[in-house]
Amino acid sequence: MSPPGQRQDHAEATADDATGGPDLPGAPPPLVAGVEALRAFLDGPHADVRDDVRGYLPEQAGLLDESRDLPRHELRERVRALASDLGASGRATRGFPQDLGGGGDVGASVAAFETLAFGDLSVLVKTGVQYGLFGGAVLQLGTHRHHEALLPDVLAGRLLGCFAMTETGHGSNVQALRTVAVHDPATDELVVTTPDDDARKDYIGGAALHAELAVVFAQLEVGGERHGVHALVVPIRVDGRPAPGVRIEDCGAKLGLEGVDNGRLWFDGVRVPRANLLDRFADIDDDGRYRSSIENPDRRFFTMLGTLVQGRVSVGGAAVSAAKVAETIAVRYALRRRQFDGPTPDGESLLLDHGMHQRRLLPLVARTYALSCAQQEAVRRLHEVFSTDTPEADERTRRDLESRAAGTKAVATWHATRTIQECREACGGAGYLAANRFAALKADTDVFTTFEGDNHVLLQLVAKGLLTDQATEFEHLDQLGMVRAVAEMAVETLVERTSAHQLLERLRDVLPGGPDGWDQEAGLLDPDYHLAMLRFREEHQVAGVGRRLKGGIDAGRPAAEVVAEVQDHVITAARSHAERLVLEAFVERVRALPESPTRDVLTALSDLFALTTIEADRGWFLEHGRLSAPRSKAITREVGSILRRLRPVAAELVAAYAIPEAVLGAEQLTGT
Amino acid sequence: MSPPGQRQDHAEATADDATGGPDLPGAPPPLVAGVEALRAFLDGPHADVRDDVRGYLPEQAGLLDESRDLPRHELRERVRALASDLGASGRATRGFPQDLGGGGDVGASVAAFETLAFGDLSVLVKTGVQYGLFGGAVLQLGTHRHHEALLPDVLAGRLLGCFAMTETGHGSNVQALRTVAVHDPATDELVVTTPDDDARKDYIGGAALHAELAVVFAQLEVGGERHGVHALVVPIRVDGRPAPGVRIEDCGAKLGLEGVDNGRLWFDGVRVPRANLLDRFADIDDDGRYRSSIENPDRRFFTMLGTLVQGRVSVGGAAVSAAKVAETIAVRYALRRRQFDGPTPDGESLLLDHGMHQRRLLPLVARTYALSCAQQEAVRRLHEVFSTDTPEADERTRRDLESRAAGTKAVATWHATRTIQECREACGGAGYLAANRFAALKADTDVFTTFEGDNHVLLQLVAKGLLTDQATEFEHLDQLGMVRAVAEMAVETLVERTSAHQLLERLRDVLPGGPDGWDQEAGLLDPDYHLAMLRFREEHQVAGVGRRLKGGIDAGRPAAEVVAEVQDHVITAARSHAERLVLEAFVERVRALPESPTRDVLTALSDLFALTTIEADRGWFLEHGRLSAPRSKAITREVGSILRRLRPVAAELVAAYAIPEAVLGAEQLTGT
Repeated sequence: MSPPGQRQDHAEATADDATGGPDLPGAPPPLVAGVEALRAFLDGPHADVRDDVRGYLPEQAGLLDESRDLPRHELRERVRALASDLGASGRATRGFPQDLGGGGDVGASVAAFETLAFGDLSVLVKTGVQYGLFGGAVLQLGTHRHHEALLPDVLAGRLLGCFAMTETGHGSNVQALRTVAVHDPATDELVVTTPDDDARKDYIGGAALHAELAVVFAQLEVGGERHGVHALVVPIRVDGRPAPGVRIEDCGAKLGLEGVDNGRLWFDGVRVPRANLLDRFADIDDDGRYRSSIENPDRRFFTMLGTLVQGRVSVGGAAVSAAKVAETIAVRYALRRRQFDGPTPDGESLLLDHGMHQRRLLPLVARTYALSCAQQEAVRRLHEVFSTDTPEADERTRRDLESRAAGTKAVATWHATRTIQECREACGGAGYLAANRFAALKADTDVFTTFEGDNHVLLQLVAKGLLTDQATEFEHLDQLGMVRAVAEMAVETLVERTSAHQLLERLRDVLPGGPDGWDQEAGLLDPDYHLAMLRFREEHQVAGVGRRLKGGIDAGRPAAEVVAEVQDHVITAARSHAERLVLEAFVERVRALPESPTRDVLTALSDLFALTTIEADRGWFLEHGRLSAPRSKAITREVGSILRRLRPVAAELVAAYAIPEAVLGAEQLTGT
Repeated sequence: MSPPGQRQDHAEATADDATGGPDLPGAPPPLVAGVEALRAFLDGPHADVRDDVRGYLPEQAGLLDESRDLPRHELRERVRALASDLGASGRATRGFPQDLGGGGDVGASVAAFETLAFGDLSVLVKTGVQYGLFGGAVLQLGTHRHHEALLPDVLAGRLLGCFAMTETGHGSNVQALRTVAVHDPATDELVVTTPDDDARKDYIGGAALHAELAVVFAQLEVGGERHGVHALVVPIRVDGRPAPGVRIEDCGAKLGLEGVDNGRLWFDGVRVPRANLLDRFADIDDDGRYRSSIENPDRRFFTMLGTLVQGRVSVGGAAVSAAKVAETIAVRYALRRRQFDGPTPDGESLLLDHGMHQRRLLPLVARTYALSCAQQEAVRRLHEVFSTDTPEADERTRRDLESRAAGTKAVATWHATRTIQECREACGGAGYLAANRFAALKADTDVFTTFEGDNHVLLQLVAKGLLTDQATEFEHLDQLGMVRAVAEMAVETLVERTSAHQLLERLRDVLPGGPDGWDQEAGLLDPDYHLAMLRFREEHQVAGVGRRLKGGIDAGRPAAEVVAEVQDHVITAARSHAERLVLEAFVERVRALPESPTRDVLTALSDLFALTTIEADRGWFLEHGRLSAPRSKAITREVGSILRRLRPVAAELVAAYAIPEAVLGAEQLTGT
């Protein structure tokens, strides 16, 4: 600490290029973290469920070690057995109604899934396919007869299935998939056919080896008329061999998740009874006529897909958990590993005493805390929507949930990829050894950004919702339809709303002090300031996309060309939206806490998340007059100051993740 | 294209938030790329050597497929056999003097290594260990007797060795390693001992299975006095079993490079003859006295280490090659894969027609071209330094080379990690299948950022050189020594130099036009503008670090504390330095070309690299008054415009990498 008299000199010395700097006099008192309180904050309403899974996870620990050397086939059998056990024990089936043998608690089921993600991720994904995707589709898209016939065996892990949606071509455009299911009135059967190789089902988890049934998504044709994509149950394997007319291929070795048997499926006129159509939203009556309670085909399609949103929420949560594992290992390593040339008298210090190392790890921890809150908020809404007895009651709420799930999934999975990479590098050569867990973490999570919806595609869906705003009808349009809709809308509404907001926030920004002088920094730790910044960015970017679309259309350019050109702007706006939701969730959770040392720690984490998010995009904020150069530099200094405050509680921050030592692995790094 | 009359409207519509936009009237003519000319540009002076390796690589293609399912032990044997063949065929030994059986061409040897990096990376690393690290250490640190005794068998791939430098503790601080080699005058032997578990040699490639000899780095003690780190040859394995006193452990499964047998070594009083000391720079005479031609121990140490710089240059080059493989697959996939909602009349288009996809891939391609030039420049200097007959001639040139090699290695390996990740994601689920090459590429290259010097540590070394500038003596100081030195230096010199530069550049910046008006954009494509921007950033950041260090010391704060605090600023400055060198290398190579369509393409790539580099750090440039908000936005627009110009030649850009189809793999993605 420097004497107060030197304050201005320091300010000058560090104002330029400062990416850190001495703390100013009057710095807040040291932080004190209680692991249990932080853990309670992170665990949320389903702490008991999480603890139950924590208690179970050591049973998997052997697999984590052995899986590196097991031949693929043996690994897959081990994983299947564990996934079946998770059904039989009820740990993976909490989301199903109690009268079907489930736990009747959707929120609890995601909490269990998130906690399972601390362990082997092949087991997690195999479990997710069986109970989440396959079982979930039967539950959500089927009716009583399907539930009765299938779910008891499915939930017990006796009857394995798969979820055959994705095709080799058009992977991200489900509405355009090309497998067909034609109703044959002569036999009252549905005939499933793969028209060509591009329409084969691809990357289907469980298809290569274990699934007996598949929920197949296909274009339904009844009486010579196409009715869009519907789902039906197709037996694909009988006594371990492909069913007649079904061709199955193993996708073979993958980058990760080697315990999951992904495969490809082709159907050559495969016949199943009409009753195999999952008929909650549409049916074929006894006279061979198509009927649906939802007339608009777009709306029907999105309603069907919307019921499957839990998968997306679950992947987002699993990504956050994987990031927690990586951070726990890297932070503990940085608190053990001594480094030469350090700031202690003996010339050695811990890795985490170095500014660079704090910069690498602690903002990731803060973001993980923030995402945990956002994830909990998504789960809370999921639980509300799917626990109600009036499923059609509030479509707006459902669309909001879907958009939130898509955005959270995208930012959470990108965060996991980035975090695991940074943590691996921060552990140096030791991080490269498979025994230290990063190998599997990296490889297994890598596809999270792609499956359950490619992140870029998801963000385009989010943006579509933002642009068309309240106009639910528009959300069902394809992108070209959206462009036309936007062009017809009063874009000025958006613009005006943004301008008003801008004025308001500019006033706020000026309040804490002049553009010079250190007092201005006071406002940097105000969560309302953080929220205002992220809200401004989002609204401005969304309005900008709207203006560009409208401008292009008005100028007579082909709509598709305009859309293609604006695409990265669209993604940027949607990402800003998702980050705003994350910050809001974090700030709201922290605000709801009573004054306490734990709240102070969480406030510091919230500040760190908000300021590093603003800092990372400071180019944009500077361009748009939301930051002055001195204030931008002040943010960087403030980040350095928060990092130094958090350093003494770093061990507690990751201890609160409460990852069982048995599955943490990495004994060499963490010293356990 | 819009009519000229609407130009201002478009400018307004896109000026805000624009991340693309319609091309302006008067846009340059379409680019035309000649694959052969681009290839010649990339291949540089050793095209024949590269083509020779290209012709060989199909011999490895089988391994690329099989390695996914081979048990680790078999894989390692396959890799060893291939590495031995590469020595016997002369392909991996071009850098050794001709009288020792080598090719006598250092530059050619790196070119061959870089091209081998298109193939299996375990083979590459195994080869690098045997001929580069082990053989290179014998060549550079040993003298005639070692060369005669060892190199013929080493170069023929008959006598395998390893390079035992890294220890479990203090991985990045070679000077502090703790293995000891004590001269015993009674027997005239050197006694090698591992004092404790932290001093075991770790991650040593070749140690687990195949190496018979190790070049061991140890603290040399002669006549009771320590003389710092020296290297000596120690037999570690006899007839396939550990030599007496040597304990060997297998590092086991790794994240990647599973074909390389990394191991750990402990020495328990292992005795070798005095003649095993690699004695080019220091020796023990017949009377048992230590002698060295370099008196200063620091200088001696850095001179010894400096001779091993080729390894670092080679890894940088391999990283660039790995990025080329990933880009080739992803770009070709993006030129095959059709996407719904595209800008063509039938509603479908190629992935690469989408703005977002161009944004994801083409800047990476531009950076790979830039890094190829920087790499060639590093190799050229390496060749000059190591081909001269007066090795001690110019220490300054050697230090420059080492700094350049360190910086290029850091930015190239980070680029590879980022590029391979982005390309994997850009290929969606197909990218996750091991058959499509990304699995191995990701896993095998992941450690590039860590080995041959952790990137963060390397950049600190680069920064040390920048701060102490001409004062060679300082470069040998540890970080604390550096702080004191900087504090004593006239930091004002740095500051003044920067200010003058700043003024000059600000003038330049104003030249192209006023802060408003589109004409300002003319200057955006001026390479002198790009260079001025990156030079300004570097000098400003380096001077800033100096000021902060001096400020901290002057304020009486502990030097170590000041260093720890400034650390991330140090890394930032060094990275800016490295990027400036990369841009200079690219611009100089392009400028040297005659006017031609190929030069136009390369100019566009150079512009794209420079502008995306500035754009990525536009927050900094805005903070430091080097960009106005309108100009910053104009850069983003210009990037969009360059991307659209490059789109039609994207196939040619990656075809020029000329990666043999047989090792490209990924048939499903590239359609070959």
